[in-house]
Amino acid sequence: MKVNGEEYRTIWMEGTTVYMVEQNLLPFEFEIHEASTYFETCFAITTMIVRGAGALGAAAGFAMAQAFMHAPEDDYWDFIEQAKEDIEATRPTARNLFYAVERVYKAGKNGAKEAVKEAQLLADEDARDSRLIGKFGAELFGDETSILTHCNAGWLAFVNYGTALSPIYMAKKDGKKVFVYVDETRPRNQGARLTAWELKNEKVDHVIIPDNAAAYFMKRKLVDFVIVGADRIARNGDVANKIGTLEKAIVAKEYGIPFYVAAPTSTFDLNCLHGMEIELETRSEDEVLYQTGIDTNGNLSKIRVASPGSHAENPAFDVTPSKYITGFITEKGIIKPYVQSIKRICKAKRSSINYLE
Amino acid sequence: MKVNGEEYRTIWMEGTTVYMVEQNLLPFEFEIHEASTYFETCFAITTMIVRGAGALGAAAGFAMAQAFMHAPEDDYWDFIEQAKEDIEATRPTARNLFYAVERVYKAGKNGAKEAVKEAQLLADEDARDSRLIGKFGAELFGDETSILTHCNAGWLAFVNYGTALSPIYMAKKDGKKVFVYVDETRPRNQGARLTAWELKNEKVDHVIIPDNAAAYFMKRKLVDFVIVGADRIARNGDVANKIGTLEKAIVAKEYGIPFYVAAPTSTFDLNCLHGMEIELETRSEDEVLYQTGIDTNGNLSKIRVASPGSHAENPAFDVTPSKYITGFITEKGIIKPYVQSIKRICKAKRSSINYLE
Repeated sequence: MKVNGEEYRTIWMEGTTVYMVEQNLLPFEFEIHEASTYFETCFAITTMIVRGAGALGAAAGFAMAQAFMHAPEDDYWDFIEQAKEDIEATRPTARNLFYAVERVYKAGKNGAKEAVKEAQLLADEDARDSRLIGKFGAELFGDETSILTHCNAGWLAFVNYGTALSPIYMAKKDGKKVFVYVDETRPRNQGARLTAWELKNEKVDHVIIPDNAAAYFMKRKLVDFVIVGADRIARNGDVANKIGTLEKAIVAKEYGIPFYVAAPTSTFDLNCLHGMEIELETRSEDEVLYQTGIDTNGNLSKIRVASPGSHAENPAFDVTPSKYITGFITEKGIIKPYVQSIKRICKAKRSSINYLE
Repeated sequence: MKVNGEEYRTIWMEGTTVYMVEQNLLPFEFEIHEASTYFETCFAITTMIVRGAGALGAAAGFAMAQAFMHAPEDDYWDFIEQAKEDIEATRPTARNLFYAVERVYKAGKNGAKEAVKEAQLLADEDARDSRLIGKFGAELFGDETSILTHCNAGWLAFVNYGTALSPIYMAKKDGKKVFVYVDETRPRNQGARLTAWELKNEKVDHVIIPDNAAAYFMKRKLVDFVIVGADRIARNGDVANKIGTLEKAIVAKEYGIPFYVAAPTSTFDLNCLHGMEIELETRSEDEVLYQTGIDTNGNLSKIRVASPGSHAENPAFDVTPSKYITGFITEKGIIKPYVQSIKRICKAKRSSINYLE
């Protein structure tokens, strides 16, 4: 997507260096972060310089490829195995991260060149899948549609285009009118910071709302669809995604508003039978107790917004049971959240699947 | 309640001056704000130096009394009528504000002295009612209870004790174990700032959670009760309260968790047939786009936390339909959210009502 007139991907690799948009500084500063070893790429993942399901997949794939390129001859496989372990230990919930590591690791058995090729292919696939998700998703919309989204499943969360936001970009290109309610998405405010920034860049009409206000707008029939991304989807259709997704899904169901999850089939984990098996990351309480932003002098500043002496709990993800989900928008079409549909679409070739089967 | 060992009410009047805890500075600074005219008291209401249903009622009552004390002889009733209009225009949603203005206005017809007496009586009643709410509410709890609350309906929102938090304080005094999940309550963070501060002062175990995480904890059966306050309750039991209350109520119902609204009968508006008739205030987008807190140097600082160039919508209240409400905890006992029970309890003498009828 374009930033200041130039075309960017969220993450890419040239030679042995991984380049990525520094997402902790957005939307206040736009900077490209460089990671020259797998270890530096892991650091970028844990510190959330790069985040979002697909972008984490690409980052992990590149990190694995970096390990193959840098492994010392006399300690080759020990180094690789250690790297694999380190990369997989960065963040537990995103399925794409593990999926990418597995694929690049396997390809690397035929040499570092193959690992690099596979990692690049994975990133390309992610961008192409996101684009196809946009194409399928946009067909759901009428000429005028209002969408509520949670967190950021835009191009910053993938290699390009995004999942939940991709249909919005495609619909806009097709000349349809779209309006987006952007949940600010506490505690890290990815909605207010990243989704709003993306939508502003693409000139999509939108408004930021406190997470608390989603039901207020849904009750007033101002929301036609809720569309969110996913970090991991179980075989039965249960979805792990950013904390708060479950609340939005319950409320959407209460008001009869279609609730779609947009994700490539690489986010489905067929070995995971249901949501209770998904490991959910909890993060530092400081994300809740403190906020960062720019002060009146334009400097990035961190302030405490909660009562001193009190503590916080910060579960980063929740699981939305499949019963609240209207359908999955994938790169191969839209399906209902049934085990059989999920199994079929994961095995199907791209675009060979009908809608909502 | 006690602050640094001294007993305080949230708001009180001595002579012609109204004193109140400056709630915009809490929890970082504890300061008493003085308003020496009705106009200054109105300013304190609109700028949220004083906020919360009962405290707004007391403030409005005192402001009306100030008007009677300061009305010039040659323009007496014009001044009074103008003051009444000004006070009622400060904030539209809280029932107690209008209730207090009416009572003091009526009493003032017999002179300024009567107005002052009535305003003082109103404040005393609010404190006593809050205490009784605590007594009735605490009887719901077992020996170990976990409560989720939204926003701040503690003593800072009333003259003393509070409503939603009063049962928690009483239960703790009775030697029961209580644990509180405190919704941070965006955008103004009254949970993270005020409720957490109150609970810490009273040594009640608690943890702050992002509003998004309430469903996560409810789904895990970690919450026994949800208890919130109310700004206005319609004759049919629909409740206007802080934005996000509706989401919590829907989710609580989904998980079979009792959802109580704690409020004195002065918050019920029998002339309001249902929630759709309640005027809901929307506030400045800046409350969503900016946050205040203390920086690393300990100074109060305001930072922008949302993407520059994007806008926000900021509905301050929502309406929770009575079907999601388990019961009302009032100063006269606990009732179910039925029209007949509401009418009866509003007319009944204190404590003459049975539980949950």
